Amino acid sequence: MQLIFVVYDGMTALDAIGPYEILSRLPGARVTFAGVQAGPVRTDTGALSLVADRALADCPDPDLVLVPGGPSVRDQVTDTALHDWLRAVDPATTWTTSVCTGSLILAAAGLLRGRTATSHWLALDLLPMYGVTPVAERVVQDGKYVTGAGVSAGIDLALTLAATIAGPQVAQSIQLACEYDPRPPFTAGSPLTAPPALVSRLRADAHLVLTT
Amino acid sequence: MQLIFVVYDGMTALDAIGPYEILSRLPGARVTFAGVQAGPVRTDTGALSLVADRALADCPDPDLVLVPGGPSVRDQVTDTALHDWLRAVDPATTWTTSVCTGSLILAAAGLLRGRTATSHWLALDLLPMYGVTPVAERVVQDGKYVTGAGVSAGIDLALTLAATIAGPQVAQSIQLACEYDPRPPFTAGSPLTAPPALVSRLRADAHLVLTT
Repeated sequence: MQLIFVVYDGMTALDAIGPYEILSRLPGARVTFAGVQAGPVRTDTGALSLVADRALADCPDPDLVLVPGGPSVRDQVTDTALHDWLRAVDPATTWTTSVCTGSLILAAAGLLRGRTATSHWLALDLLPMYGVTPVAERVVQDGKYVTGAGVSAGIDLALTLAATIAGPQVAQSIQLACEYDPRPPFTAGSPLTAPPALVSRLRADAHLVLTT
Repeated sequence: MQLIFVVYDGMTALDAIGPYEILSRLPGARVTFAGVQAGPVRTDTGALSLVADRALADCPDPDLVLVPGGPSVRDQVTDTALHDWLRAVDPATTWTTSVCTGSLILAAAGLLRGRTATSHWLALDLLPMYGVTPVAERVVQDGKYVTGAGVSAGIDLALTLAATIAGPQVAQSIQLACEYDPRPPFTAGSPLTAPPALVSRLRADAHLVLTT
């Protein structure tokens, strides 16, 4: 099974690395990190480079594609080279997936039209402009399209997929190997549970990023 | 605040990327990924390269050090160049931290002698040989030494540290930005909760890795 993790400048690292850590442990998984061009990409903080081992053009036949998100939505939804590749390979994938605002890339490429999807909670409202119905869930599956909510949700998405692909025993074994027994010190990971003042502040900040 | 994330060939990516995603969002954080030599390192699966932007020798004064783990324990505990650097910088750090079997590296370097620490659940038994008392908790703090359990525990470790460093409001804001509202599809992330047959199987497999 050929899994392609898409990388690009400005992406959020954990969006990809969370699911990579789970899905790379599937029996028979062959994982490749790939970008529009091969070579290092710089993630959104500017402090980390991940390497695209191959160019997307050299990955014509993935079984699973995962597209991460990042804070610079405008750049993401106008990357025509990435969109062209996604449209070319999507008809033959078994799974086309995203984490965080990666769903906006799939949507902008036209792959989610008429479907349901999720995204980072701050970006859910942007999905309808691409004909997509937003669903405020952590993992949303619509046929072979599986989308995850913000950043850390990729781990839950990947375990869900692992169970579907290889069965619950394999998924549980991977969960145990990664000691994924989360114990967040606060209950603030969702706009439904975080202090309302924090939700408002992030919403105000995000408005600047998402619309400029 | 200067944060150094140590990277090396054979490391587990999520051990470092989970806490990086949290701690890099602290106000004033200056994050650098560094290795014994600058340049790309290959993570444990062989499918991903992260880049060490600097050599550890060029990072003489970190406020926080984070050491990730990896499955090849023997390589980790005999890397004298890494140990030398850790011993050189540790006296002046504010925080010296690890995720997963990274605590074995800190321990092998002699930094945890007489202290309590955690590690990946499969490696806890190895800590006493370095004079360290293992504690089977997700995050263990002993003075300025903060250690996390396996792989995904780095996210919880980092949020705990973020709250101590910058206050609970900042930590909660980062948690919300990363939408860290975990919903594992199974309750199998700890040897206490996973199906006993899976625990036994991983323990048998790990015995081969840890002792050869």
